[in-house]
Amino acid sequence: MLPGPFLLHGAFMLNLFYAAHTCALASHIALEEAGAVYTTTRIRFADNDQRKPAYLAINPKGRVPALVTERGVLTETPAMLAYIAQLYPQAKLAPLDDAFAFAQAQAFNSYLCFTVHISHAHRMRGTRWVEADDTHAIQAMQKKVPQGVYEGFALVEQHMLAGPWVLGETYSICDAYLFTLAQWLEADGVDPARLPRVAEHRRRVGERPAVQRALAVELAD
Amino acid sequence: MLPGPFLLHGAFMLNLFYAAHTCALASHIALEEAGAVYTTTRIRFADNDQRKPAYLAINPKGRVPALVTERGVLTETPAMLAYIAQLYPQAKLAPLDDAFAFAQAQAFNSYLCFTVHISHAHRMRGTRWVEADDTHAIQAMQKKVPQGVYEGFALVEQHMLAGPWVLGETYSICDAYLFTLAQWLEADGVDPARLPRVAEHRRRVGERPAVQRALAVELAD
Repeated sequence: MLPGPFLLHGAFMLNLFYAAHTCALASHIALEEAGAVYTTTRIRFADNDQRKPAYLAINPKGRVPALVTERGVLTETPAMLAYIAQLYPQAKLAPLDDAFAFAQAQAFNSYLCFTVHISHAHRMRGTRWVEADDTHAIQAMQKKVPQGVYEGFALVEQHMLAGPWVLGETYSICDAYLFTLAQWLEADGVDPARLPRVAEHRRRVGERPAVQRALAVELAD
Repeated sequence: MLPGPFLLHGAFMLNLFYAAHTCALASHIALEEAGAVYTTTRIRFADNDQRKPAYLAINPKGRVPALVTERGVLTETPAMLAYIAQLYPQAKLAPLDDAFAFAQAQAFNSYLCFTVHISHAHRMRGTRWVEADDTHAIQAMQKKVPQGVYEGFALVEQHMLAGPWVLGETYSICDAYLFTLAQWLEADGVDPARLPRVAEHRRRVGERPAVQRALAVELAD
């Protein structure tokens, strides 16, 4: 599960720990868009890889994603996305030279993380917040997921998607993150037709070669 | 409720919309630590200010905090904290010149937001995730809050608090944020004695004049 050290021709290489169908895809896409030299390690939730000592030594939270760098391990999607943008400034994945515009990008990512992803998480990760044997409470949370996820995306649709990309004319880490969470709409019981701008954005991001390369890795076995 | 424009001697002034006992305190402390010239506007949840059209025009999310700047409105605590640090670099509230160290600070703030604050929110904001009339589910979530909040802080205690401050020798936005969420330990049913390093950190941050000034404003009236 844990190859390493992550070297290429003797030089350190970033390594992204990811699991398929998770928010790790956002960082994976950002690395591809940046033209980063990196490797990936798949974590299989079905095998409970994320709870094994070898992985907990890397990320004590027992979650994905985690990015192993020469300086140490980074976690948390919003922080990783901003870091990738800063590490590869030539890719222009964030407005690094404008503190207010950068803060707006960060606010968007924080909103996806704290509100949209959390609404989604109540479908499959309910035992974080109620006892695992409380079937009624688990189901009560699952039942509200379509509404919570829809409302989270509706604010994006109405107020946060400048167009054509999240921040306007320039594609950024925000687009990779929105695309990633929008993968889950149907499974969360939300009809994308109710979110036409988000759905159209998802379609266009999905056409990008970098996105297709990241997806090809994650969806292969 | 909404004074403005926020001018001082004809110059634009930052305005922080906050409510007492919320995570807005973190940004409030950061503004004080930075020596910012700013004003504040109190939002009263008891009066449902956050849902009134005048506030929704500023922050359609209907939540606090929100920071009104000359360029527009910023929301989301992790983004606001990084912005305040960037706006007042002389205050050295974040390691702005080191992308990896900055990313670690951001990862810490993201963890507080996405995991610790979310565990806490299941005590009072349960209707975000289940129907308001589902008393059983609401109570089931409340019942697990002490465990969830404790586990969230335990990871901080064991892995994330370098000491004496979160990032090590230098006080930062991370300390203001950790202090803010640690205000809620007792109300969330967690005995601070189980988290001696977090409790000691809270005590020391609470001694800082900037923190006392922010608290004095928020706890007055």
